[in-house]
Amino acid sequence: MKVRVLVSLKPGILDPQGKAVEHGLHGFGFAVEHVRIGRMIDLEVPASGIEEAKAQAQAMCDKLLVNPVMEKAIIEVL
Amino acid sequence: MKVRVLVSLKPGILDPQGKAVEHGLHGFGFAVEHVRIGRMIDLEVPASGIEEAKAQAQAMCDKLLVNPVMEKAIIEVL
Repeated sequence: MKVRVLVSLKPGILDPQGKAVEHGLHGFGFAVEHVRIGRMIDLEVPASGIEEAKAQAQAMCDKLLVNPVMEKAIIEVL
Repeated sequence: MKVRVLVSLKPGILDPQGKAVEHGLHGFGFAVEHVRIGRMIDLEVPASGIEEAKAQAQAMCDKLLVNPVMEKAIIEVL
């Protein structure tokens, strides 16, 4: 079962990479604001149902994928 | 208007970061497969409608956000 984990910085945490991209986009004339960069992690888990897949992905987030101090994750079953 | 751009490597392009995460997850006992890492770029554009927002985001992808040789992008208006 395919799962997508979207990891983003919590609000208030400085995002220098986002600032750099925002600055670059301004250089191209785009009036863009509040650019934030996160990670997308696509994976396949051996789950038989949506809830089981979500539970497995949540366990992976807790163990390895997410730094809970600075980051939050959204789990989507595709 | 909030837009999310999900950038991922095209199929067939080697993803060493994904392989490293997959290996790490196996070390924790997760039977996970096909791990691929991409970028999530959240931003706000000054558009009045969904189509205009998508068009602006597509232009940003073409100019700066995406390497069309190796990457593809999905644009979502939030």
